Order: sequence, then C-alpha cells, then structure tokens
Amino acid sequence: MIGRLNHVAIAVSDIDAATAVYRDTLGAEVSGKVAQTEHGVTTVFITLPNTKIELLEPLGENSPIARFLDKNPAGGIHHVCYEVEDILAARDQLVARGARVLGDGEPKIGAHGKPVLFLHPKDFLGTLTELEQA
Amino acid sequence: MIGRLNHVAIAVSDIDAATAVYRDTLGAEVSGKVAQTEHGVTTVFITLPNTKIELLEPLGENSPIARFLDKNPAGGIHHVCYEVEDILAARDQLVARGARVLGDGEPKIGAHGKPVLFLHPKDFLGTLTELEQA
Repeated sequence: MIGRLNHVAIAVSDIDAATAVYRDTLGAEVSGKVAQTEHGVTTVFITLPNTKIELLEPLGENSPIARFLDKNPAGGIHHVCYEVEDILAARDQLVARGARVLGDGEPKIGAHGKPVLFLHPKDFLGTLTELEQA
Repeated sequence: MIGRLNHVAIAVSDIDAATAVYRDTLGAEVSGKVAQTEHGVTTVFITLPNTKIELLEPLGENSPIARFLDKNPAGGIHHVCYEVEDILAARDQLVARGARVLGDGEPKIGAHGKPVLFLHPKDFLGTLTELEQA
C-alpha cells in the first residue's frame, strides 16, 4: 500500500538556525520559508536527490508541534510521511485492520496541497505516520 | 555535501511485531531479519520505491539502542542516514564547522558494509544523524 517516503519532518524551535544547519553545515538545497497559518507551522523544505526533509517551526497559538517542542526543546524528528495512491482506500484498509486515524478520520489538505491523514503513533511503532495522496 | 536519504531507522522492542505492521498493515516489502552482533542490533529493512526504513531491535547486552527504548518503550524514530561521496572529507568539513562526531571520530563499517559516522544530535536539530559513504 505505501509508496515513496514523501518526507521526514523535523520540528525545531528556530527555523532560521535550523535552515542554516542544513544549508551551510550539511550543504543541502533549502527552500524559502512559508508560513502555513492554517496548519500552525512555518515550513522549510530540504531537497535531497530522493526525498525531502521538512523543517517545522511552531506558528501562532495552539501549534500542533508546540507540545512536542516542550518535550524536545532541542528539536527532533516529528513524523514520517508516506505516499499512497488513494487515501480513502488506504484509510479504510488500515481502519479495517484496527489502526487509528487521528482527528475526525477525514483527510485534510496538507502543506503540499494534497489530501493527508495522520495515523496514531501507538499503532505504528511509536512513530507519528502521515499518509499523503500521491 | 549530503546526498540521498539512505534510510530512516525506527527502534522497536519486538522486531517481528514491527515487521508485521509494515508488511501486513502498511503493505510494504520487508527483508529478512539479520542479527548484527557487532552492532548490537537485529535489523529488518523495509524497501520503499525511493529509500528504506530500517527497523532496529536491541541485540545482546549493551545494545546502543537499549537506552532509547527505555525512554521510548513503544519505539520511535531513532536516526536518519544521509549518503556522502567521501566520508572523511565530509567529516573534516563538518568538524571544521564545529560539529561533533560521536565516538572516536573514525568511520566504522556499518550495517550495509560501508563506512559510517554518527553526528551529535545536539548539533543537528536534536536528530541523531548518520553519514554513510555512498
């Protein structure tokens, strides 16, 4: 069912400093910074030859990554995102196997403009797992 | 400097159960289980179209992932691994920029039979970061 690894997301408290680590220290190609107000995060994408790293900084009150950064003030890997061909079919298959979808179970439009869902970390090896329709 | 994302490693306490999650629930292609006694882990690789997920279970006493699992008993993302063309050149460039290499600073032969180094998580956004010579 799952296809490509679309991205690995790293939550950070200072996205400018984090971008500099990837651009200057690790020598990677970095995008501009985008405020995603409806998602409560500011994003920068690191383009690798085969996938992306998504840097996330909290934006506004009630950011979905605020609590993660309270627990991990130095930052840390927040989630992985896999592509699926049909997100509703994938969801129904996962739910039939007992996996839990976060929120109301309906796909939302994610940071890339495509439908996404988040799966419960406890059902996926302690790993917050996002599915994105390819 | 960094090239492809070689793999994302997920530490788990029960690699058979973890493999079943990826094979049966997420429908991915999984490898056989390999005991890497010199690394203190048992590994299973999940092959995605563009990269791999490495499942790690502690093996023997003093496994390098034992403490991580004590803190994260449900498992969790343990590290990311980027490919570099020349690991010694990459190391020297990183050290010159003030980054810390774990251990004695010399590359070891990793689970794929290639030279690897681990970088200090505090210098890389709270993310344990492995470099592997491509």
